[in-house]
Amino acid sequence: MDDFHVIVAANRGLALDAKGDLSFGSGGLVSALMPAIQGRKLTWISAPPYSGDANFVPKDFDSHVADGITLDTVPMDFETYNGAYDRISNETLWFLHHNLFDATYRPTFDHSWYENFEAYRTYNQKFAQKIAEAASEKSLVLIQDYHLSLLPHYLSQLRPELKVSHFSHTPISEPSVWTMLPDEIAREIILGISKAKMGVGFHTTKWRDNFLDCSKAYGIDSPYAFSLPLGTNPEELDETRHHQDFKGYQDQFTSLCENRQLIVRVDRLEPSKNILRGFHAYDELLSANQELKERVVFLALINPSRSSLDIYRQYRENIEVLVSSINEKYGTPNWNPIELRIGDNRIQSMAALSLADVIFVNPVRDGLNLVAKEGPIINQRNGILALSREAGAFAELRDSSIEIHPMDVSQSAGALYKALTLDKDERTLLSRSAKARCSSYTARNWLDDLIEITAGRQSY
Amino acid sequence: MDDFHVIVAANRGLALDAKGDLSFGSGGLVSALMPAIQGRKLTWISAPPYSGDANFVPKDFDSHVADGITLDTVPMDFETYNGAYDRISNETLWFLHHNLFDATYRPTFDHSWYENFEAYRTYNQKFAQKIAEAASEKSLVLIQDYHLSLLPHYLSQLRPELKVSHFSHTPISEPSVWTMLPDEIAREIILGISKAKMGVGFHTTKWRDNFLDCSKAYGIDSPYAFSLPLGTNPEELDETRHHQDFKGYQDQFTSLCENRQLIVRVDRLEPSKNILRGFHAYDELLSANQELKERVVFLALINPSRSSLDIYRQYRENIEVLVSSINEKYGTPNWNPIELRIGDNRIQSMAALSLADVIFVNPVRDGLNLVAKEGPIINQRNGILALSREAGAFAELRDSSIEIHPMDVSQSAGALYKALTLDKDERTLLSRSAKARCSSYTARNWLDDLIEITAGRQSY
Repeated sequence: MDDFHVIVAANRGLALDAKGDLSFGSGGLVSALMPAIQGRKLTWISAPPYSGDANFVPKDFDSHVADGITLDTVPMDFETYNGAYDRISNETLWFLHHNLFDATYRPTFDHSWYENFEAYRTYNQKFAQKIAEAASEKSLVLIQDYHLSLLPHYLSQLRPELKVSHFSHTPISEPSVWTMLPDEIAREIILGISKAKMGVGFHTTKWRDNFLDCSKAYGIDSPYAFSLPLGTNPEELDETRHHQDFKGYQDQFTSLCENRQLIVRVDRLEPSKNILRGFHAYDELLSANQELKERVVFLALINPSRSSLDIYRQYRENIEVLVSSINEKYGTPNWNPIELRIGDNRIQSMAALSLADVIFVNPVRDGLNLVAKEGPIINQRNGILALSREAGAFAELRDSSIEIHPMDVSQSAGALYKALTLDKDERTLLSRSAKARCSSYTARNWLDDLIEITAGRQSY
Repeated sequence: MDDFHVIVAANRGLALDAKGDLSFGSGGLVSALMPAIQGRKLTWISAPPYSGDANFVPKDFDSHVADGITLDTVPMDFETYNGAYDRISNETLWFLHHNLFDATYRPTFDHSWYENFEAYRTYNQKFAQKIAEAASEKSLVLIQDYHLSLLPHYLSQLRPELKVSHFSHTPISEPSVWTMLPDEIAREIILGISKAKMGVGFHTTKWRDNFLDCSKAYGIDSPYAFSLPLGTNPEELDETRHHQDFKGYQDQFTSLCENRQLIVRVDRLEPSKNILRGFHAYDELLSANQELKERVVFLALINPSRSSLDIYRQYRENIEVLVSSINEKYGTPNWNPIELRIGDNRIQSMAALSLADVIFVNPVRDGLNLVAKEGPIINQRNGILALSREAGAFAELRDSSIEIHPMDVSQSAGALYKALTLDKDERTLLSRSAKARCSSYTARNWLDDLIEITAGRQSY
């Protein structure tokens, strides 16, 4: 498959460490994909590093080669980036795809929104120009995510012969949610994605089918649409397990929890992750089952995100207030019921997941949710996965997890109770099943398959 | 059709004035239907008058006959009423049916919610018992609205031979929205309605089709489902026009507005009515069209509602702040751009609509929206209806109005501009068309038809 020049286009660039080598950045697409691309010859094209992430490539960085991978950025002024990224991608499209609008107030399409959408168009056009220049006849272009919905269309106008795919790492909503957008904008976005002539991909058939329903609703011919759930990276998880800090965190959590059972969640601080209802469920669990008091600890490792948005700041505040109130309500001198840590520390998070008796993943809606796949692999305690039916990964892990209804706090409390009290044989069986399913297909397999689809040599 | 004993079941009771005669209460179902039932022999069964509405029948009222109509209440303690009405009907079902959940925070189904749903079941059971006692073999039972979703089922268990219909005055959401509810609760509600064996009705085919999709999604056989949009009451509108206060309000508005054009909205203070985005649209209208300054007034007559709910109180506060800021931004010594009046005064509202150049109705979603039908009838100025495509009435009035996209403030501003600047011939044509359509079918026709459907003598 290396006879092709592969170009990956994504909003965020790869991270470089102080020595200029590739390293894991914070959460999201890049850290999920990076292990899969290491050692390949490809070009990664991203927006300029405006987001303030210290791990980003430096501002004066234009094109850089590390580990055989060419990193390149699209020249773009901050105003264009900000309009496209914060205003349209984060404030509108993210909420659209996750069906998280509070329709009393949002969305609201006013003059300033339309100006920002113009910036989103420009942002996508600039990517198209950059790729049109960089691509050879044999290039395969793998476009990633909702920031670049219009890119397939613009690129098809500049370089109609190029083989292009588009992959969404978010969910996609039903047509009835899309009617909240101005009709012509909704159509423009669906059409934009649809011009990825080699294929349009999602992490699960549910999102793929929603996309096909939208295409139909707007009278647009869809290219080949496929479901290709991202895999984990067992080698990287193995490296994590052998990281010098891993054992230290494990010891810390072991002594913190003594002989208590451990519920663990690892998430970005994101409304779609449903962190508040998770704590409400824990509250009901403790309230309904007196015998669990002092016998269980909820360890929540939360990675801050998009703190420039009011909704995110407010969400964080509500989480901190709720956690305090639950700890006050149930805590004893010997027991802090919830241990909340807000910060970005992958080793710490993985160490917590390794010790979990319950891996709790309850998003309102989620494209895939990689924690639901990494957790079972790194876990060493026959930990049970309690998984939202609205996560993309649920389709694969339905039979290897306990189902969570994300809105139903009482049901979630019951599911947590079941996960904590499952007998030993059932625990072993269920956790092994999850481990096996999560290990069988890797991120590298996924990228191989996406390349094959984009080349037109394979279909799913 | 009077060979049947007709029983109407609804949450709210008919209003009595000081003399004990039937009178119009505040907004909603009762005031819409009351003119239609006057002069008929029927029994109206409602919950006890707990809501603090002074026009309600008194607390010690048990059964009362006025104008030939028997009024009766269902014995019920306040806790049951409050759980069913405020917690379930208003806070959950209303938001479900209007697709107004802010999914980051709501709905949340916890222990206390389930207790309230038990109260909702009890509330519906008590209605079933009361009707089972009151109904003769020949009774027709016309159940109204989402407060009584389970009543058809309970009644069918007590009196399987009775002819029963259920009519929803709200919209109903797509199955994807219903998945937010606990599965068994969603199924219970759809099944509850479906047991109205003579028919299940809505104001428009869109809501009927959503109901049929839900029935299918939950594997429930639907009875005959029909669309029967409520009509207006031209006689009552005529009485209103000749009311002693009507001319006084007209004169007040005429002098207030001098020779300016008038945009009028009349609504309950309700997030679904989209009052904020309406003012944002007006802001854009003034900002984009300098020539309109001092030439137009936005008269907003808003009826307070459900002020016991935080969301409603917050919504009111946001409205008042926004109106002040727009008036400050554009106002001159001679001109107050928005005249906001919060209160319950039907005569004043109808006087305003009579003088409107634009009748502005932009709900996020609405079962029907009676203002969209009453406005064009009472209007005396060739006023143009600017109507949300998400109102039930839009299906009938599409060709007699200017379409509003409720989320799209810029589009709404453009639609308002078009409505204000339409040339004289087009105005006459469009307003006459709306007037004709809105007058052709009355509330009395609607009740006749609902009775005929319930009797099994007619279908739609």
